[in-house]
Amino acid sequence: MFSLEPNMTAPTDRTRLRRAHERGAYDADSLHKVLDATCMCTVAYVIDAKPYATPTLHWREGDHVYWHGSSASRMLKTCAGAEVCLTVSILDGFVMARSGFHHSVNYRAAMLFGQAFTVPDDEKEAKLDAFVNGLWPGRMEGLRPNNAQELKGTTVLGMKIGEASAKMRSGGPVDDDEDYALPIWAGVIPVEMRVLPPVPDERNLPGVEMPGHVRDFSI
Amino acid sequence: MFSLEPNMTAPTDRTRLRRAHERGAYDADSLHKVLDATCMCTVAYVIDAKPYATPTLHWREGDHVYWHGSSASRMLKTCAGAEVCLTVSILDGFVMARSGFHHSVNYRAAMLFGQAFTVPDDEKEAKLDAFVNGLWPGRMEGLRPNNAQELKGTTVLGMKIGEASAKMRSGGPVDDDEDYALPIWAGVIPVEMRVLPPVPDERNLPGVEMPGHVRDFSI
Repeated sequence: MFSLEPNMTAPTDRTRLRRAHERGAYDADSLHKVLDATCMCTVAYVIDAKPYATPTLHWREGDHVYWHGSSASRMLKTCAGAEVCLTVSILDGFVMARSGFHHSVNYRAAMLFGQAFTVPDDEKEAKLDAFVNGLWPGRMEGLRPNNAQELKGTTVLGMKIGEASAKMRSGGPVDDDEDYALPIWAGVIPVEMRVLPPVPDERNLPGVEMPGHVRDFSI
Repeated sequence: MFSLEPNMTAPTDRTRLRRAHERGAYDADSLHKVLDATCMCTVAYVIDAKPYATPTLHWREGDHVYWHGSSASRMLKTCAGAEVCLTVSILDGFVMARSGFHHSVNYRAAMLFGQAFTVPDDEKEAKLDAFVNGLWPGRMEGLRPNNAQELKGTTVLGMKIGEASAKMRSGGPVDDDEDYALPIWAGVIPVEMRVLPPVPDERNLPGVEMPGHVRDFSI
């Protein structure tokens, strides 16, 4: 019932496939696609033997992922140099079967395992710029530049994409053979994230028009 | 820049509020609303001192949250009786400011900390039914009933909502005073999850109509 990720929980489980419509995808391209499909992730870490998972924003450059925040953040201070697990999950639909057990969801998910590192001060600004420009091409160039205090107050962490798994499900329900004879509505309710019309700040100066990178933004 | 959750990383940080538009909400009602706004969460746990965070589906009944999966799942076997962190996050929009630093996101997020317990066998089916019927009122009653093997193969874990925090941001950008004089477009790009038209399974029997709980489904 609503099986999600049972074989993503550990490397040792990764090769087990459960269902026709499910597949584990371990090639870099599939993994990158999932990581790039959303900017929201969860970073898990350990403090005093207890698990913490903090939602944050990530971006990818090549075979690395990055995330950032206030230099005072306990999450960032804990993760620097430590083992972390960065998880991304995207819900694509509800799969409604003829039994409760075979209900499921369509989704795309990725888990990355590794040691986080602190991006050196002299590379920090370029990484942050890449994050913003990755979402909205050219935006950084039109903004008030970062100042030293802002950069000092920001920590950027990175992780090489090494030990990782991606997993996804798509398509309709898969029921027990005999259940197809039952007069039960089965199917999929797809869901998706959509972008709504941008809302200009009421303090925008007269004549300042919405830039193309806002108008054309998609996720 | 894109500050998200810096004060959600640990109980000790929870009372620090960073910004006019951000607030931590620690009352049960706010927390429940965030937990109920999506069924997708991440459960973090520790194996051999390393963090894991597995995406899964959760549901809430009163002051408890539940999640489930295959009884063979390493995640579920590890979490049973152990300390876990269940995290929910919902992206509501991109907040675009006049400097990179003040870019942010609108979001709702919750982190729950506690010890997970295994729902006893004789309560398992009622919990699973509540999960399905919580999404689609009355659906379970029209399905092929669960069989003993399916129930045996399914583990349901629960956690009392105790140590927890909810945090959210809404509204427009908050820029440095002097930056409001700059001719830069600022504003919000709202995003939302939307439900698309249901797709009936091609093997539905003739005359089986889409039930109201599918037609009226919303998230």
